[in-house]
Amino acid sequence: MRTGEQSIAAFCDQLAAATPAPGGGAAAAVAGAMGASLVSMVGGLTRGREKFQAVEEEMAAAQEAGRREADALLTLADEDQAAFNQVMAAFALPKSTPEEKAERQRTVQAAYQEATRTPLETMRHCLAVMRHALAVVEKGNQNAVSDGCVGFLLADAAFEGALWNVAINLGSIKDGAFLQEVLGEVARMRREREEVQQAFRGLAPDPVTRFLKQQ
Amino acid sequence: MRTGEQSIAAFCDQLAAATPAPGGGAAAAVAGAMGASLVSMVGGLTRGREKFQAVEEEMAAAQEAGRREADALLTLADEDQAAFNQVMAAFALPKSTPEEKAERQRTVQAAYQEATRTPLETMRHCLAVMRHALAVVEKGNQNAVSDGCVGFLLADAAFEGALWNVAINLGSIKDGAFLQEVLGEVARMRREREEVQQAFRGLAPDPVTRFLKQQ
Repeated sequence: MRTGEQSIAAFCDQLAAATPAPGGGAAAAVAGAMGASLVSMVGGLTRGREKFQAVEEEMAAAQEAGRREADALLTLADEDQAAFNQVMAAFALPKSTPEEKAERQRTVQAAYQEATRTPLETMRHCLAVMRHALAVVEKGNQNAVSDGCVGFLLADAAFEGALWNVAINLGSIKDGAFLQEVLGEVARMRREREEVQQAFRGLAPDPVTRFLKQQ
Repeated sequence: MRTGEQSIAAFCDQLAAATPAPGGGAAAAVAGAMGASLVSMVGGLTRGREKFQAVEEEMAAAQEAGRREADALLTLADEDQAAFNQVMAAFALPKSTPEEKAERQRTVQAAYQEATRTPLETMRHCLAVMRHALAVVEKGNQNAVSDGCVGFLLADAAFEGALWNVAINLGSIKDGAFLQEVLGEVARMRREREEVQQAFRGLAPDPVTRFLKQQ
């Protein structure tokens, strides 16, 4: 059954089970999908109001991107589990002859690469969600600002969760060129995330002070 | 339908809809429940192994607490939506006579207090999840360390998301004693969270460096 089709309670039960999949990679992707959905919500609660005419286009983009990113992230939750199963299947291949050993080694390496690419893709989508979250928090309907903030926070945690799932594979990957490519992409995305985080902290520094001041 | 019974995709669709509920409060609680479930998973993957005999009791506690906290957080996701609906219902009360106005005012205030208590309770449960996550990341099966880390990160984001949902009500609450009690509790929990975050950063400073070093 696809992750999106499972009930929330059943998915939690499967996470809680003492089996390696589904695990943190899938949970991070689902959290990112919820964050994306909240961005969509705030975009939708902003659009079509005269007061927000100047940002109509940006809010429409956030609303649409939120739904698209949520779908992509739920698919990545499935792919994360599939990639883990591929690694397990590769390790189960026979290794009696030198040919079998070489074939198994190739399959294991290909599976590790796929298990790295999947959370890397989750990181990319979470970064996109964070950017749109920033837009709705800054320019969207302020009655829903807390929803935009939760959207940002969930995408941010999912980014870091996915990063852990990229990282756990790095020690097993033998292809130096692939490894360097991944490390470069990770470094680039972490810099971008740092910028987006700083912008968020500037916009939404402290919830308690913000709302007490409104009294 | 209870939040836990909904499919993940349907819940995301409801979040994404341009209606105020369900929103960030419920999404934060669900993220916390996923974090709690991951803590349970790592506890379970650690228990009953000779190598981890010394921490058997602590891992059993984490495994059990994770399931209990996940249940509590899914219930809080329901309560968050119910509390929002109460606020809306209170505002819809008649206000033609002074008596009706006074009654409406009392009901609105009671509803705001309940809408504040619910995410405050979510914060408490997320803090408990973070403490158990710290234990499994530090002392649990290191093959599942990334799952424990994602558990921590999701509970941490859910804590802050719930804080936003406490904060949005603060400007509307007239009862000074209640307000002071909430502010005290928030300040206490934020200090505790800061300590737990620091401990986490000490244990799990950088995923990339950690796993590359293992090569």
